[in-house]
Amino acid sequence: MEEPPQTWFEACARTLTDPQNQRVWSIIVSLFGDLAQKPGDRLSGSALSRIIMPMGIKPEAIRVALHRLRKDGWIDSARTGRASAHYLTEFGRARSAEVTPRIYTRVPDTPADWHLLIAEDGSGQSALDEMLLTADYFSLARNAALGAGPAPEASEELMSFDVRARAVPDWVRARACPEDLAESCHSLLDALERAAALLPAEGGITPLQTATLRMLIVHRWRRVVLRMPDLPTAFFPPDWPGPDCRAAVFHLLDRLPRPALSDLDAD
Amino acid sequence: MEEPPQTWFEACARTLTDPQNQRVWSIIVSLFGDLAQKPGDRLSGSALSRIIMPMGIKPEAIRVALHRLRKDGWIDSARTGRASAHYLTEFGRARSAEVTPRIYTRVPDTPADWHLLIAEDGSGQSALDEMLLTADYFSLARNAALGAGPAPEASEELMSFDVRARAVPDWVRARACPEDLAESCHSLLDALERAAALLPAEGGITPLQTATLRMLIVHRWRRVVLRMPDLPTAFFPPDWPGPDCRAAVFHLLDRLPRPALSDLDAD
Repeated sequence: MEEPPQTWFEACARTLTDPQNQRVWSIIVSLFGDLAQKPGDRLSGSALSRIIMPMGIKPEAIRVALHRLRKDGWIDSARTGRASAHYLTEFGRARSAEVTPRIYTRVPDTPADWHLLIAEDGSGQSALDEMLLTADYFSLARNAALGAGPAPEASEELMSFDVRARAVPDWVRARACPEDLAESCHSLLDALERAAALLPAEGGITPLQTATLRMLIVHRWRRVVLRMPDLPTAFFPPDWPGPDCRAAVFHLLDRLPRPALSDLDAD
Repeated sequence: MEEPPQTWFEACARTLTDPQNQRVWSIIVSLFGDLAQKPGDRLSGSALSRIIMPMGIKPEAIRVALHRLRKDGWIDSARTGRASAHYLTEFGRARSAEVTPRIYTRVPDTPADWHLLIAEDGSGQSALDEMLLTADYFSLARNAALGAGPAPEASEELMSFDVRARAVPDWVRARACPEDLAESCHSLLDALERAAALLPAEGGITPLQTATLRMLIVHRWRRVVLRMPDLPTAFFPPDWPGPDCRAAVFHLLDRLPRPALSDLDAD
């Protein structure tokens, strides 16, 4: 049994914590992406711990995650006496920058032009699978993938069409928005609304509390938005919670302006 | 061993005869479609025999084929004393009229607009198969079919796009023009050129000879052209003989103007 939360902050943090398995290294990636993505941005070891620990994550788990992120080339650390500072490597910043537009856009820019690639039944599959790995495609069927913009000059093996969607049947909508994604989206929307009701006025929130709550929101939203295909509205079920969820994310982030890094070691 | 042909006409008829299995009822359908498709058009039994027999087909085979065509509702026959006359039924005329434009067009009208239907993997197949049966579609893959014009409002089960082809890979070209179709087309083109060289000037050909040769050309062309999809040029292999074959068909038919039905019983 969890103890009942004592403060608005504990209640808020608990509400916003992703009910799915939390991977600490992935949370740290979300945190750096949100607060310390620019060259020269650093987070002290103590600030990092104080931001993350309210999620119920132990210092040992943070150390292990940092070790893994260093090993994978995402993060580097510097030590001055007993104090440590962590920062994204160039590689880490590049990976972070890749997804930042999709995570932080308030009005997703759905392309007007689309193209469809079709692979030959059987042996042709692998040419399409390669495209799916290296670019953003929506897999419409085993042998068909929808991509934004005009068809690439690319492959000799794939049939390509410039397309405009006419009729979108339910099975395509279910493929664009699998049930578990819709559930994650609904549950995040619900958490955001409950957190918004708990949040005090701006003056009553410390920079560290702000950092923690932003990290929780961004991390959970990241796990939803990066799975949402940027498809025209017709591809989504009528009750699709995506746009409401996106609006609630930015409504709450706007009430939690990004703190200065220097303020995170001050209190 | 066949005997060597004695006359230009025998040589011409032999050259133009389809080397594939000849179904007599199908040849008779080609003949009526070419010469006697209008309401009221009739072919006497003796004209019919004299047109078809130069292909090496026996009177008994013609009788059997006529019996089958009557049974299937394509043809009706009237008898006056010992003479018989045959004509297309309303059903037969309708079926014949359906394919006449594709057989006789000199410049195929390739649509500018196309649509693509995609069925769900597995269970969705049957909805697409139904469309393929009832309308002209090019089957691009088990679950994808290309049709002329804008997408139909139709099905709730099929994803539909308005499309413009961008890149056409070899496997699609092979699907549009299977090897055996290309071979039939090459072999017909070759036969037409040899026949054109054998043909005397217009005055030297009787109405019955004209009817026989036209029937042979139309029958063989029908078997090729009805299998050729009306797709944009990009879908055909660069050495595709279709356009040359079509040109040769009409070049030869123009030298063999359709005889009046009344002239077929005259000589």
